[in-house]
Amino acid sequence: MDSILNEFELIRRFFNRPSDDPAVRLSVGDDAAIIVPSPECVLVISVDTLNEGRHFFADVAPASLGHKVLAVNLSDIAAMGAMPRWALLSSSIPDSNTEWLDEFTRGFYALADRYRVALIGGDTVRGTRSFTVTIIGETSPDAALTRHGAQVGDDIWVSGTLGDAALALAILTRQIILGAGVLSQMRKRLETPQPRVELGLQLRGVATAALDISDGLIGDLRHILDASAVGAYVDLATIPRSPILDRLLNADARPLALHCLLAGGDDYELCFTAPPSKRNLLENIGKNLTLSLSRIGVITKETGLVILDERQRILDKPPHAFDHFLSTDRKL
Amino acid sequence: MDSILNEFELIRRFFNRPSDDPAVRLSVGDDAAIIVPSPECVLVISVDTLNEGRHFFADVAPASLGHKVLAVNLSDIAAMGAMPRWALLSSSIPDSNTEWLDEFTRGFYALADRYRVALIGGDTVRGTRSFTVTIIGETSPDAALTRHGAQVGDDIWVSGTLGDAALALAILTRQIILGAGVLSQMRKRLETPQPRVELGLQLRGVATAALDISDGLIGDLRHILDASAVGAYVDLATIPRSPILDRLLNADARPLALHCLLAGGDDYELCFTAPPSKRNLLENIGKNLTLSLSRIGVITKETGLVILDERQRILDKPPHAFDHFLSTDRKL
Repeated sequence: MDSILNEFELIRRFFNRPSDDPAVRLSVGDDAAIIVPSPECVLVISVDTLNEGRHFFADVAPASLGHKVLAVNLSDIAAMGAMPRWALLSSSIPDSNTEWLDEFTRGFYALADRYRVALIGGDTVRGTRSFTVTIIGETSPDAALTRHGAQVGDDIWVSGTLGDAALALAILTRQIILGAGVLSQMRKRLETPQPRVELGLQLRGVATAALDISDGLIGDLRHILDASAVGAYVDLATIPRSPILDRLLNADARPLALHCLLAGGDDYELCFTAPPSKRNLLENIGKNLTLSLSRIGVITKETGLVILDERQRILDKPPHAFDHFLSTDRKL
Repeated sequence: MDSILNEFELIRRFFNRPSDDPAVRLSVGDDAAIIVPSPECVLVISVDTLNEGRHFFADVAPASLGHKVLAVNLSDIAAMGAMPRWALLSSSIPDSNTEWLDEFTRGFYALADRYRVALIGGDTVRGTRSFTVTIIGETSPDAALTRHGAQVGDDIWVSGTLGDAALALAILTRQIILGAGVLSQMRKRLETPQPRVELGLQLRGVATAALDISDGLIGDLRHILDASAVGAYVDLATIPRSPILDRLLNADARPLALHCLLAGGDDYELCFTAPPSKRNLLENIGKNLTLSLSRIGVITKETGLVILDERQRILDKPPHAFDHFLSTDRKL
């Protein structure tokens, strides 16, 4: 803990970084930022809050947290098929601990730099740790990927693997005991998720609907089904998972593993639909990005989501997505 | 307290209101909102967080709070001379108390409707009450009012009266005992501040620098002086104040009254600079808006802020602006 900094010193030291983006006319330090949007583009805007004790542990590595607060927002822009451009960060922090903030902003800026996202504004107030990022992206009109375009007969795809972040959380909250090596491997998925920005951009004109999986596959896929007024069959065997989760799925831990795979949040993979005619194209996109893309089901006319297990029987009582306001537990 | 609503029911019921703004291509309910910015405009963007126990009392009237979380952000857009257009609201709330949320959103939407601001997105998470509004406005390039244009010889102006919000807070925190009638009058200034949006729009091409007074006149005026590399003389006698504060200023309560007037936050009046050639114009603007505009001082070449008291003597030890990270008290 350094000497105490006041609010404006904190902002100057940690949250005011010059940007070389010519579209940023005015950045941190006035009543508001000024940006010049690209001609012929629409703006794609999202906001997400992460609260201590709810979305992250108090003792999380601050650099990871700095990464994650931006990553979950980049993931929303990715899910829209847009290019992220600018971010605002409102921070509630209990004190002016400069070591903590050095690490936190290091994680935040490393990810921002990777996607050339400029931090253009924010607010710094005192309180229990809580971070709200507003992110603004751009795309051309009619190119954005929404939730309501899924068509009967479309394939359902997901990127990467699902369930590892939830498994890390299950280990950390001692719902399951696994070796330390497993935790350190899974933990990366929970604490430093990788937003699928490049994939989102390539899905423009290819996917008919898309979203990011933040609350678990079942809950999130249902948003696409509801918005598109369709249903789906999903084949459990084809849902991509890590070898560790696969092993648990075929052992005593199956209920927990099923929960992680189907209802675990925080994966931030993309789930999207596309007509079968795009299969080759999508396989090439995955290869070029070295990111696995898996077909897990099909959109049906009959509404409702049916999950078929490994023997093609309808899965009884699929796990529920987490809900902040129904759960009495902490999400963590 | 109604039956428990889940996160999506909460969003649907309280935070998803259709907008008739044709620029809103996609609103609440997808991964992100999509807006079509007006051609030839720049975007003006700001974010502010209000935390329970820090920026508002736990027992504040929820409709007032709904008004205030938007008002403080509209005030930033006003200070830039921009037209507010769209808002995002991220809410941390402890439960799904629908009565409270009905009132809160009533206050929020009433103010949003007054300025035709569309709520286009947000996040709803569980936690101690905290509200973060991101606001986006538009203006033509080079019309925005910033902090760095004040010129030597410019007049310094403020709108309305200063110090009433801080006086209300002083009464509520029992720093001073005054009649209930006084509190109810002052309290409006603290709990339902009026953003000076119309004034900000009229100051385009007139003011050389502007900001809103959220942390107190001295602290905020210093931002203009620092950004513009100039100094100022301010004449205490000319700082506009309510009759009640004026009476306290000439009584035993003078130190507290001085603090309210010079360093009290939460007024959300505009402070701006303009050349003397604009005096008539500004008087007319004030008349048309039925909003008093007062000349309180002048911009000087010599840096530093000098406040002259009623006898034209330099004010010793002017009160300090509140700072979240230096104060050990709650701001409230």
